[in-house]
Amino acid sequence: MPMKGNAIIAQSGGPTAVINSSACGVIQTWLAQATGCGTIYAGISGVKGILEGDIIDLAQQPPELIDGLRHTPGAGLYSCRYKVSDADQEQLVSILKKLNIRYFFYNGGNDSMDTAHKTWLAAQSAGWEMRVIGVPKTIDNDLPFTDHCPGFGSAAKYLAASVRETGIDLESVSTKNKVTIMEAMGRDAGWLTAASVLSRRFPDEAPHLIYLPEVPFSIEQFIADVKLVYEQLGYCYVVASEGIRDAKGEYIAAGGQRDAFGHAQLSGAGAVLKDIVEREIGVKARCNTPGTMQRVAMHFASATDAEESYRVGKTAVEYALADKSGVMVTLERSEETPYRCVCGEIALGQVANIVKSVPVEWINDEHNDVKEEFIRYCRPLIQGEVALPMRDGLPDYVRLDFTKGRI
Amino acid sequence: MPMKGNAIIAQSGGPTAVINSSACGVIQTWLAQATGCGTIYAGISGVKGILEGDIIDLAQQPPELIDGLRHTPGAGLYSCRYKVSDADQEQLVSILKKLNIRYFFYNGGNDSMDTAHKTWLAAQSAGWEMRVIGVPKTIDNDLPFTDHCPGFGSAAKYLAASVRETGIDLESVSTKNKVTIMEAMGRDAGWLTAASVLSRRFPDEAPHLIYLPEVPFSIEQFIADVKLVYEQLGYCYVVASEGIRDAKGEYIAAGGQRDAFGHAQLSGAGAVLKDIVEREIGVKARCNTPGTMQRVAMHFASATDAEESYRVGKTAVEYALADKSGVMVTLERSEETPYRCVCGEIALGQVANIVKSVPVEWINDEHNDVKEEFIRYCRPLIQGEVALPMRDGLPDYVRLDFTKGRI
Repeated sequence: MPMKGNAIIAQSGGPTAVINSSACGVIQTWLAQATGCGTIYAGISGVKGILEGDIIDLAQQPPELIDGLRHTPGAGLYSCRYKVSDADQEQLVSILKKLNIRYFFYNGGNDSMDTAHKTWLAAQSAGWEMRVIGVPKTIDNDLPFTDHCPGFGSAAKYLAASVRETGIDLESVSTKNKVTIMEAMGRDAGWLTAASVLSRRFPDEAPHLIYLPEVPFSIEQFIADVKLVYEQLGYCYVVASEGIRDAKGEYIAAGGQRDAFGHAQLSGAGAVLKDIVEREIGVKARCNTPGTMQRVAMHFASATDAEESYRVGKTAVEYALADKSGVMVTLERSEETPYRCVCGEIALGQVANIVKSVPVEWINDEHNDVKEEFIRYCRPLIQGEVALPMRDGLPDYVRLDFTKGRI
Repeated sequence: MPMKGNAIIAQSGGPTAVINSSACGVIQTWLAQATGCGTIYAGISGVKGILEGDIIDLAQQPPELIDGLRHTPGAGLYSCRYKVSDADQEQLVSILKKLNIRYFFYNGGNDSMDTAHKTWLAAQSAGWEMRVIGVPKTIDNDLPFTDHCPGFGSAAKYLAASVRETGIDLESVSTKNKVTIMEAMGRDAGWLTAASVLSRRFPDEAPHLIYLPEVPFSIEQFIADVKLVYEQLGYCYVVASEGIRDAKGEYIAAGGQRDAFGHAQLSGAGAVLKDIVEREIGVKARCNTPGTMQRVAMHFASATDAEESYRVGKTAVEYALADKSGVMVTLERSEETPYRCVCGEIALGQVANIVKSVPVEWINDEHNDVKEEFIRYCRPLIQGEVALPMRDGLPDYVRLDFTKGRI
């Protein structure tokens, strides 16, 4: 019999298209399987909300809203970016004790796993028995010890489709703008940037050049790369990570330029590259900077990713009810062809604060493309589409009713 | 009996998600209905391609590729931005005569309708009887004498969905970036920017502020607007046209700032607004600049728009075969509820080079939102989704085979 007591779930860090699929998996599985244990609360805005007493009883939300989370992007329970202090940690455990929380689910990325780990240790120090399970999410795909991260596949699919579309745009009307630059999210890891390669069906199709933050970026080499493609095709499509850095580790985005007021230049890496192309090669360029659009494009999410995200949440509850604790749920690729994935686990202490980069062996020698190994890894993650409920021509996303079930 | 002779179609200007639906409508309808007249050619890259002899016989393309155009974004026949000189015009007519072209279909926006009109006049001057029909397209929705333009509904649907998604993102994690700015395409007309309003289901949902190029933009008022929303909600979502201008008509995007090299600042309007928010209000902001993504997002196109685009192409052929000439096909809203649209026509000479702006009466007095009249106008245009053929998790767009049927 699982330990009696309540559960709590909270979300932290940047949202994804499918982070709420995981939350929905946790909540629905708890409500279905943890009968007799207790209710499940949500901390609104992560640990910050729990510390501030911003907590609701999810059992009092209309079930259709909980179900609606499964197809709603963004952090349905709200998210925070908050570094928990030692004093916070103590207070957090005392709040959790007061609410008789015996199951703590934390849905987030690297920093969030650190928070979950510390909360687990703090509960142990306080002699409070509590299952703590990390529920991973990040479009950056940079959590270690998991084949990939929930949220990545959807962002990858959306970015690859967008590169294919804007690549066709460039190809079909290259009389004006001859170079298109797409700036992809992922400051420290190039997984999402690399995923743009899935757009390319033919050798001459976009993207022609891909720059990841894992290897040093050389402006001279970039100019030579673009010139070469441009001479061959008459146009050139570049995908660059927002976090590309030169050999000294300086961000290309900053560029050291300041405006008249001494403020750092407004532009990100993509706009800097656009300027370099126009100035040094003398052809007009365009930069697309979709920004947060990449991480919440539920309208073109990967069904594989959405299903796995739900499964990771479901598994988190099953692990906790089976007395596991102090672990993050992982995804393990059990078969390559056909692709199959199963859930596993890893100690939170091993995950926390480690960034998994794209292996340098998967990047070509010229540092401007990725290899077949990456494509084989990534392609299964973007398969399938999610059917969304639509209203008035737009996805009918839900909002939980935070006035219901307040404690 | 329609006049014997061949047809030609070409595309011009910025692509849309559904411009090829119109081209497909022209080609398939010609092949089905113009039996006995002749073949249908394509000028590759608009009139520029025709002038350079870059022409293919579309009857020699595999029918499945022609059919695939219907769900492929970008200019499937390639596009140009090219101002035709008087000498060009003469040469163009002589090429068309040599190919026995009696039907000329030109698929584009304002400038393209001007080109079509001039070509019609030039053919008349040369005593060459030729039907000339304009097939409209533009995401800017700024062609006059038509209720709306093919291509607009799809861009509007995509932008509104993206604002809804990134609005949820902002709302759910406003502890870091408290202001999101979306820069929308449409330098001279604010139709697309205004369409973002369709995202808003509740008064507090994004977008909170909408700025169109039709009315003067005041930086002071903008700061006050953002402050007010931010004080009420703790975050603020702004959609601004790339073409917003101050009372003197100066683009906000240019801003007069130059970098150390004397180059105009890299940023567009959105990045300038982001900087203003951070500097003047002191809260962190983010700017999404989807750029060309807006005009070719076939993966989330409006079925209404795609169907109408095809129908406009089909109608163009039917008009030509019925001896109409010198006209652009228009869309006329024949019923409000339920929405119905029929095709009509307008003389090319009346359309050419005129920009239709959002009526100022549809913009609120504060110049930071649009009124219900706009919503009633726009909402029917984004209804329905297009089922795309998918391969490997991505839309399986086609490329015509330009080596086939070359003349």
